[in-house]
Amino acid sequence: MIVLGVLASGNGSNLQAIIDNIKSGKLDAKLGCIISDNPDAFALKRAKESGVPAYYINPGSHKTYLETERELEYMKCLQEHKVELICLAGFMRILHSDFLRTFKDRIINIHPALLPSFPGLHAQRQAFEYGAKITGATVHFIDEGVDTGPIIIQRAVEVDDNDTAEKLAQRILKVEHQIYSEAIQLFAEGRLKKTGRKVEITNSD
Amino acid sequence: MIVLGVLASGNGSNLQAIIDNIKSGKLDAKLGCIISDNPDAFALKRAKESGVPAYYINPGSHKTYLETERELEYMKCLQEHKVELICLAGFMRILHSDFLRTFKDRIINIHPALLPSFPGLHAQRQAFEYGAKITGATVHFIDEGVDTGPIIIQRAVEVDDNDTAEKLAQRILKVEHQIYSEAIQLFAEGRLKKTGRKVEITNSD
Repeated sequence: MIVLGVLASGNGSNLQAIIDNIKSGKLDAKLGCIISDNPDAFALKRAKESGVPAYYINPGSHKTYLETERELEYMKCLQEHKVELICLAGFMRILHSDFLRTFKDRIINIHPALLPSFPGLHAQRQAFEYGAKITGATVHFIDEGVDTGPIIIQRAVEVDDNDTAEKLAQRILKVEHQIYSEAIQLFAEGRLKKTGRKVEITNSD
Repeated sequence: MIVLGVLASGNGSNLQAIIDNIKSGKLDAKLGCIISDNPDAFALKRAKESGVPAYYINPGSHKTYLETERELEYMKCLQEHKVELICLAGFMRILHSDFLRTFKDRIINIHPALLPSFPGLHAQRQAFEYGAKITGATVHFIDEGVDTGPIIIQRAVEVDDNDTAEKLAQRILKVEHQIYSEAIQLFAEGRLKKTGRKVEITNSD
């Protein structure tokens, strides 16, 4: 059974979906630990309530990335908990190449748009304000860019004429909760074959 | 009945779909004229075979736009044929602001991707090489940018693991043929309400 580590900065609704899907047996995985860069993250509370080791690790003084020394602490914590796949769930910091090398092809993220459209913050609002008629969600491997890594799963969500950015974001969130666990399950089953930028989903044995 | 003008540089398969949909009654429109910047465009042959006035108008010596004097000839031809909506169908040149002002909110284009992903040339191949799992097609109004105008209709197309760029492009093309005529019909019925970047599709009376 694969051991997951989740990095989260905020509410952690994607973390909750993972917890729920593990409990219901949809996801054959175990949560090794949750780490947050925000001591008040509700994600930490969700983790503790589910009996998962949960840590706040001080990210240092930069706002957009982890200070080098702190990043080593994150890595040490993940390794001590024998984490095999790192799932970013609303984690608001860029990871450095040391971190990426150490966990090469074992860090994934969920983004609330059909990448490469609408990367970065507030992707749902970006899509809404652009007047897109179709947006969606993307699970992808992390690389050194922002929301640029190889794509594992995408799912489309239609924008309705009577949508608000908030209603749209809620529908996208439901899709996020589904496809993130689907991607983790595929990873756990060894069914993701990455070649360059392309991720093929192979058949199960 | 709305009068269409089509600008095309090449094969004109989207033009053919419009011709076919008019013939079958799906599209309540009339083709006023076809203009090409390429004397050998197969689109001209398609137009002539359907009895539609078809013209090659020399674009001048630039490769990416029409020379000012030539652009006036394009405008004159469209006006002489009482064109009410201009449909770009693989027309490979940028239009200047004079043209855009003259036909304000009456020029539309079809693009083989879910904009703003993969603007510009070879959008199907771009999506394929990026490793996108979902791409599609977009009908949009023309503004001064390249593939940046307000979106009228988008439709998603899934990328299969055993796709080639060519197979994917073929499936996208089928969707293009459908949604371009749908968008023209909505325009003809006066059902497109544009506010800023957003295009609402209103109910028919």
